[in-house]
Amino acid sequence: MREEEVETPALLIDLDAFEHNLARMQRLLEPSGIRLRPHAKTHKSPVIARLQQRHGAIGVCVQKVSEAEAMVWGGIDDILVSNEIVGNRKLARLAALSRIATISVCVDDPSQVAALEYAAEAAGTRLRVLVEIDAGSARCGVAPGEEGATLAAQIAASPGLIFGGLQAYHGSAQHLRTLQERETQIDGAVMAVTKTLDALSRRKLACPVVTGGGTGTFELEAASGVYTEVQAGSYVFMDEDYGRNLGKEGAPVSTFCNALFVLSTVMSRARPGMAVLDAGIKALAMDSGMPRVWKQPGLRYVRASDEHGEMEIAPESQSPLLGQKLRLVPGHCDPTVANFDWYVGVRRGRVECLWPVAGRGALY
Amino acid sequence: MREEEVETPALLIDLDAFEHNLARMQRLLEPSGIRLRPHAKTHKSPVIARLQQRHGAIGVCVQKVSEAEAMVWGGIDDILVSNEIVGNRKLARLAALSRIATISVCVDDPSQVAALEYAAEAAGTRLRVLVEIDAGSARCGVAPGEEGATLAAQIAASPGLIFGGLQAYHGSAQHLRTLQERETQIDGAVMAVTKTLDALSRRKLACPVVTGGGTGTFELEAASGVYTEVQAGSYVFMDEDYGRNLGKEGAPVSTFCNALFVLSTVMSRARPGMAVLDAGIKALAMDSGMPRVWKQPGLRYVRASDEHGEMEIAPESQSPLLGQKLRLVPGHCDPTVANFDWYVGVRRGRVECLWPVAGRGALY
Repeated sequence: MREEEVETPALLIDLDAFEHNLARMQRLLEPSGIRLRPHAKTHKSPVIARLQQRHGAIGVCVQKVSEAEAMVWGGIDDILVSNEIVGNRKLARLAALSRIATISVCVDDPSQVAALEYAAEAAGTRLRVLVEIDAGSARCGVAPGEEGATLAAQIAASPGLIFGGLQAYHGSAQHLRTLQERETQIDGAVMAVTKTLDALSRRKLACPVVTGGGTGTFELEAASGVYTEVQAGSYVFMDEDYGRNLGKEGAPVSTFCNALFVLSTVMSRARPGMAVLDAGIKALAMDSGMPRVWKQPGLRYVRASDEHGEMEIAPESQSPLLGQKLRLVPGHCDPTVANFDWYVGVRRGRVECLWPVAGRGALY
Repeated sequence: MREEEVETPALLIDLDAFEHNLARMQRLLEPSGIRLRPHAKTHKSPVIARLQQRHGAIGVCVQKVSEAEAMVWGGIDDILVSNEIVGNRKLARLAALSRIATISVCVDDPSQVAALEYAAEAAGTRLRVLVEIDAGSARCGVAPGEEGATLAAQIAASPGLIFGGLQAYHGSAQHLRTLQERETQIDGAVMAVTKTLDALSRRKLACPVVTGGGTGTFELEAASGVYTEVQAGSYVFMDEDYGRNLGKEGAPVSTFCNALFVLSTVMSRARPGMAVLDAGIKALAMDSGMPRVWKQPGLRYVRASDEHGEMEIAPESQSPLLGQKLRLVPGHCDPTVANFDWYVGVRRGRVECLWPVAGRGALY
């Protein structure tokens, strides 16, 4: 089947670009020796997670218990739930999973250590628990230093739990546009980690893992000397928003290629200078801006409604045909993926594979 | 099961409020005699469509062929695809459906009449085709008047097609805040319809249906004398954005109640004055603004990331407990529903039913 024959809207992976991104990340991290634990919240696909493992990843991160379930059921052995899970039934599901795979989870409140201990004991298993420290995002996570170490000591003293290390992800640093801004923020995260490692060391608590870093900053965490693994996820696909990050001397970052697209059809051309696509808010995440029409500089996606996307056609440009299919680069890849049931893998214009978005709807 | 026991994030319907909305719409429309064809793109549920039919609806609208399939398979007999469908395979699916149910579809380009004719003939069926006119939104639809009538004549001359009437939905009028702005826009839509009806009449073409109107304006279309049916959809649930519309003398419109909620759990309280919920961009559509925390005036949902929602706690307010469940009123109901697989129907704090979001992922 040719790409133009795929029913739209469809979620396309350009397999050449995708494989380039996998290999590129492996090459970038190899010299530093830092481990890669890519975030599967980006792709929600155990197939992609397994390909990441073939390129050196040691496991994955997820955000939700249901995502962890999708990963375990798809053959992934080492999963970090990279935030807090609250609620006894969710913790029971997590403990049950830890009988099949290595499961770690984060905590940022002393009351939750007892809940985790209870869940592990009831399931007859042990859970790895990381202390989340606030690395600068001011969202979740305890204060670095003594507060983090106190929580770690509480975990280490719980027979059903293993102190797994520190979660120190700085989410809001990922999309700061200049390299200098990102460096300043990650310097702060590294200081927060160091302060907490010192406090742990005073208590003679070993810290096996320091994990964090996304597609916008992972090279900084990798070079820090204190992080042991990075959690970049979007690098496999890239999106318009990450494409706006700048690197050295203000040049655009071009480390990874656009590998994810929403294929869309022109469904109306009733007005001159405009064309309407069949992919709107229900197909494309708009929280980080409009999608870009791929390799069509004269076409600009300017307005989205639930099922429609309006494109302006530049005066000098050729008008797209009714029924013509166009690739769109999503503004934000993660929530765009979550709108679809399947990936359509294409290589040089031909469909090569269909992969389920197994963790779609895995919100809980 | 009590509401507090429901796993989060979950999509709740408050059944008392929902039934109030169904009955209220029926009462509002009865005097005018106008028919209700609610838009099922809002709820994507044949169960809800059937309840709407029990309250007088004559069928539903949908936007996508896959939504039409979900409705037909769920027992709905009369479906209008209220926009253009382009692509021969999609038209073949639509024609196949028209052997099971009454299917209508819109057109705004002469080239598509031949494609529809081909699909109907190949399936040995006849398709009802409406001409979409631009009622003021400047998105899809031909110009009102002669252009619309010419397209209608082309449909009427096609043996496999039946001219079904005019689609004249003014989408961008729905959320204009003052009644006067909405009245001005719908006056324009009524003029566009009248001009086209006159042109049809000069060609001796009967126009059985004029359809349009959403939750923001349906009373205006119902009172116009030219529309024969209204397509309001959001009225069953309401959302924060529709809640900002103003009615007579600038008073808030309170015709319908909030019946749709995302139930969410407080998952982190690490910082004073803040709490973090487990429902972010992948659970709640943010395109029309942030959700409101239901009946908690001291809590404000201020920032969303993929899986987190950050709440500010007003200084005088009680801080929510870790693990506490809170109802959120979505900013925009339609794309919020599309994030979930199930509705959890609750009545006075008890779970009463689970309804599948059968048309979830029905993008194509």
